[in-house]
Amino acid sequence: MNVAAANAANQRVIDDSFTVEPAVPVDEHVTPELGNHYHRFVAPPGALTVRYEARAAVSYTLADPATIGGTPPDRLPLGSVPYIVPSRYCQSDQLMRLAFREFGRVPQGHRQVQAICDWIHANVDYIAGTTGTLTTALDTATQRAGVCRDFAHLGVAFCRALNVPARFVSGYSHDLDPPDFHALFEAWLNGAWHLFDPSKRISRPGFVRIGTGRDAADVPFALIIGAASMRDMTVRCTFTGAGADGQEPGPTDQAVTIA
Amino acid sequence: MNVAAANAANQRVIDDSFTVEPAVPVDEHVTPELGNHYHRFVAPPGALTVRYEARAAVSYTLADPATIGGTPPDRLPLGSVPYIVPSRYCQSDQLMRLAFREFGRVPQGHRQVQAICDWIHANVDYIAGTTGTLTTALDTATQRAGVCRDFAHLGVAFCRALNVPARFVSGYSHDLDPPDFHALFEAWLNGAWHLFDPSKRISRPGFVRIGTGRDAADVPFALIIGAASMRDMTVRCTFTGAGADGQEPGPTDQAVTIA
Amino acid sequence: MNVAAANAANQRVIDDSFTVEPAVPVDEHVTPELGNHYHRFVAPPGALTVRYEARAAVSYTLADPATIGGTPPDRLPLGSVPYIVPSRYCQSDQLMRLAFREFGRVPQGHRQVQAICDWIHANVDYIAGTTGTLTTALDTATQRAGVCRDFAHLGVAFCRALNVPARFVSGYSHDLDPPDFHALFEAWLNGAWHLFDPSKRISRPGFVRIGTGRDAADVPFALIIGAASMRDMTVRCTFTGAGADGQEPGPTDQAVTIA
Amino acid sequence: MNVAAANAANQRVIDDSFTVEPAVPVDEHVTPELGNHYHRFVAPPGALTVRYEARAAVSYTLADPATIGGTPPDRLPLGSVPYIVPSRYCQSDQLMRLAFREFGRVPQGHRQVQAICDWIHANVDYIAGTTGTLTTALDTATQRAGVCRDFAHLGVAFCRALNVPARFVSGYSHDLDPPDFHALFEAWLNGAWHLFDPSKRISRPGFVRIGTGRDAADVPFALIIGAASMRDMTVRCTFTGAGADGQEPGPTDQAVTIA
Repeated sequence: MNVAAANAANQRVIDDSFTVEPAVPVDEHVTPELGNHYHRFVAPPGALTVRYEARAAVSYTLADPATIGGTPPDRLPLGSVPYIVPSRYCQSDQLMRLAFREFGRVPQGHRQVQAICDWIHANVDYIAGTTGTLTTALDTATQRAGVCRDFAHLGVAFCRALNVPARFVSGYSHDLDPPDFHALFEAWLNGAWHLFDPSKRISRPGFVRIGTGRDAADVPFALIIGAASMRDMTVRCTFTGAGADGQEPGPTDQAVTIA
Repeated sequence: MNVAAANAANQRVIDDSFTVEPAVPVDEHVTPELGNHYHRFVAPPGALTVRYEARAAVSYTLADPATIGGTPPDRLPLGSVPYIVPSRYCQSDQLMRLAFREFGRVPQGHRQVQAICDWIHANVDYIAGTTGTLTTALDTATQRAGVCRDFAHLGVAFCRALNVPARFVSGYSHDLDPPDFHALFEAWLNGAWHLFDPSKRISRPGFVRIGTGRDAADVPFALIIGAASMRDMTVRCTFTGAGADGQEPGPTDQAVTIA
Repeated sequence: MNVAAANAANQRVIDDSFTVEPAVPVDEHVTPELGNHYHRFVAPPGALTVRYEARAAVSYTLADPATIGGTPPDRLPLGSVPYIVPSRYCQSDQLMRLAFREFGRVPQGHRQVQAICDWIHANVDYIAGTTGTLTTALDTATQRAGVCRDFAHLGVAFCRALNVPARFVSGYSHDLDPPDFHALFEAWLNGAWHLFDPSKRISRPGFVRIGTGRDAADVPFALIIGAASMRDMTVRCTFTGAGADGQEPGPTDQAVTIA
Repeated sequence: MNVAAANAANQRVIDDSFTVEPAVPVDEHVTPELGNHYHRFVAPPGALTVRYEARAAVSYTLADPATIGGTPPDRLPLGSVPYIVPSRYCQSDQLMRLAFREFGRVPQGHRQVQAICDWIHANVDYIAGTTGTLTTALDTATQRAGVCRDFAHLGVAFCRALNVPARFVSGYSHDLDPPDFHALFEAWLNGAWHLFDPSKRISRPGFVRIGTGRDAADVPFALIIGAASMRDMTVRCTFTGAGADGQEPGPTDQAVTIA
C-alpha cells in the first residue's frame, strides 16, 4: 500500500502509524529519491482493517505566476527524462498535436501549465464512476469525463507533449468534500517542481503528499495480488495548525513552488 | 474492388468500363439500396493492371443552409438506425461528451453539421502518410492529423454522437490536386441526405460518387485477400459538361442536397 | 428497442404484444431483409414499464458437421461483403494473424468455425460484470473474460479474419439459467447461415431470434437517447411445444442450419 | 540520445567516443542506479552525423535454469515496484488472464519466463515494418507481428502480469544479421536479474547493454524535439576478445545471470 504521508522536500511527517487488524508483519520501504513510503503485508483470509494516521507539516513557497518561466528542452536536467517520456496512463506521444494546437501559443512557463489546467477544468466533466483503473489520458481527452486521477493524468500528458517534465502526485486534502484521496500533478518550471490541481477542488498549499511518480501506476494506494474486495473506506483530513499568517491555507492563484 | 461510379439518387452512369489485364472473368454486384458497384476477380500471379473509365452525370440541389433544419430523434426514419449507431471507424459512442461540448449549443440542422466540418478543418491537420487503414475517428480526435478518409470518419462520428444519421461516401472529384480518390460524408437532415466535405478540398456539386456506407470498411477501393502490393495508381477526373448555367461547378456555401 | 422476436427464415412469430406503461404511441419498423423488429417511443418522465410477450415457432435443420464445407472467397455471394469487413465491435482486420495461427490449419467449413468456438470457450472466462458496452473483440482476445455478447463478437471477428462471412444474433433461450437475453453468431457456410454458440450455454435449436446484425451495435436491446436507468429486468422463456420427435430441443453436436 | 554502452553490473566500458559533425557542445548524463548514459545536443540546421564507438568488456554467469526459482510477491524487494507495475508499452494489467492461462501452470522461476519467451517466439512473427513507436505489448498480443522491441515489451508485460519484476534492455549484439540495435528483457529471479531474448536471434552472453528501463520509452535511441529525419544508419559490432575458454560466446540454453 502507498497511503503514508511522504517525507519530501516540502513536507515533514511529525508522527504516523500504520496498523493492520488482525495484526500481521508489515514490511516498509521508502524510495530514496522521492520518499514514497510503501507498506506490504500478507493478508490472512477474512476481513481485514487497515488504519493509517499521521500528522504532517507542509510548507510551500507562493510566487507570482508571471515570474515562473519555462525551461527550454536543451536546458532541462537530464535526470528529468523519466518525466518527459510517455507512461502507462499519460501517452504524451499521442497528444502532441492536440497539445500544440491548444497550448502552443501560450508563453511557456507557469501560465502555459495553468492554461492546461483551465482547459481540462473547462472541457472535462468531473463525474465519479465514469472511469476506472484502465482509463488513460488518451481516453479522457476524448471521453471528457473522469475524476481527479484522470484530470491529473491528462495534465501530465499535455505537459510532456509540450516538453515540460511533469509527474503525478497522490495525497490528502483537508478541504475535499466528501473527504477522499486526491490526485494532483507537478510540472518542472524555472528549476523547481510546481503543484497544479486541474480539478480545482482543493487549496494546493494545504495538500499532504503521499506518492510521487510518473503516473498512478507508480503510486497505487493498494497494489493487490490475489482476490480482495473493499468493503468500506473512510478518509479524514483536518487542518490543525496555521500558516505564517495564522490562517488556514485557502485557494490561491499564486504559483505553488515545492522547495 | 469498389471503384465504379454508382447509379444513385443524384447520379447516372452514362457509360463505363472495367478491365483487367491479363484478362480474367469479373463478377459484378450492385447493392440494391445504395447502388454500390463491386467488381471481383481472381488475380493470376504476376503484374496486374486494372483500368476503370466512366462518364457520369451528376445533379444536386443547392439550398440555403438556414432552411435545412434537423430531425428530432423520435421522428427519424427507423431505417436510419444503421447510420446512427457506432461503426468500425466511427466510434460515436465514445465521442458523445466531446460532441455535445463542442456542438451541442449550435442549432440543429445544416448549421450544426457545418460547425462540425469547420471544427475538423480548423483542428485536424491534413497530412498524407500520418494515418493508415487502422486509424479511427477516435484516433483522429486526439492525434489531430489525417487525410480525407479520416476527416470524413470524424465528421460521421460527431454527427451520430449528436443523433444525426451520417454515412461515409467515397468518390472522384475533378478539382482535387493532385488527383486522387476522395472521401466525404452525408448527414440526414430535413428528410434528405446532404453532402459535406470537412477537408474543404473540393467543390461538392462536382463530386462523383463511388460507394456509400457506414464507414470506409463498407466501401474499400480494394478488398484484397492474399498478398498483393500496389505498384502505381493514377486517377484522372475531368469536368466535361456544364451546369444549367453553363459553368463548371465551383465551391459553394450552400447546402448540397441529394434528391 | 429491439426485443421483439423476428419473423425470419426459420422462425415465425405466432403472436406478440409490446406494451408501455404509462401508455405512449409506439412506432414500429421491420427491416426488410433481416426482419429486425424495432419499437420506438418517447418516454414520459418518471417510472416506465415495458413488457413484451410472444409465442414463436422455430425450425432448424440439423446436419452432419462434416458435410458443411466452406466457401472460397471468390465464390462468396458479393452481398455478403457487409459480414466480411470489420465492424465496431469485431475488428477482424486486427486479428488476422492470430486467427490464421490458431485456425488456419483447420479444414475450412463447419469444423473450422467450431474450432473457433472451442477456442473461445477454452480461453475466455465467462464472468458477468467484467465487460461493458465499449468492450470489443480485440479487448476480449487479450483480456480473456466476458459475457455471451463478447463471446459472439470474438467468434464473428475470427470468422471474418478467415474470410468467412459472420454476423451477430441476439435472442431468447429457454435453457439459460438464470434467464436473460442471449447472443450467438452465424457463419455463412455451404450456401447457408449456420448458428454457433461459443459460450456453449444453450441448446441452439431452441433459440428464438430477436435481432441479426454486424454486431451488437446494430441490434441494441435498447438504444436510449437522453438519461435513463434500468431499475429491474425480468426475462422468461418457456419451451411450450415439441420437435418432430415430441422432444424439447437439447444440446447437439450437429450443424444447425438456418434454412 | 541513448546509444552509449553502459557501465553496468556486468559490463565495463573500456573506452568510447561520441562525436557530432558539425561539432556542437554535448551534455552527458549517467543515471545513478542503472548507468544509462545519455548525450544531448542542439543540432544545427542541415545534415548531421553522429558517431559512437566503444569497446566494452562483458561478463555473465551461466547457470542451470532448473536452479533459478522465482520469488513470491511478498518477498520481492520493494524497490522492484517500478518493474512490476504497468508502463507505457507494457500494459501488464490488461494481460493478466492471458498470462495466467498460458503460463500460470508452469513452475515459477527461470522455466516460466523461458516459457514466455518460447510462446512469443512461436506465436509472434518477426517482421520488420509491421510496427512503430506507438505499438504496445497489447497490440502485439493480438496482432502477432513485430520486431525485437515488440517481442521484449510483450515478454516484460507477461512477466509483470505474473508478478515477476521485468525490465527492458536495449543494446548491441555481434551476431545480429543484418547488424542493428537489439532489444531484450530482464526478469528478477532468485535475487538477480536474468537476461532473456524472446526473438531468439542472438547469443545473450555476447550482448552489450546500452539502456535499461521500464520499456522503450525510458531508453529511446534518440529522443528528438523538433523536426528531423534519419537519412542513414550503420551499426557494426565485433567480438574482439574471448571468453574464459578462448571461445566466442554462442547460443546457450543456460540461464544468463547478471551479477
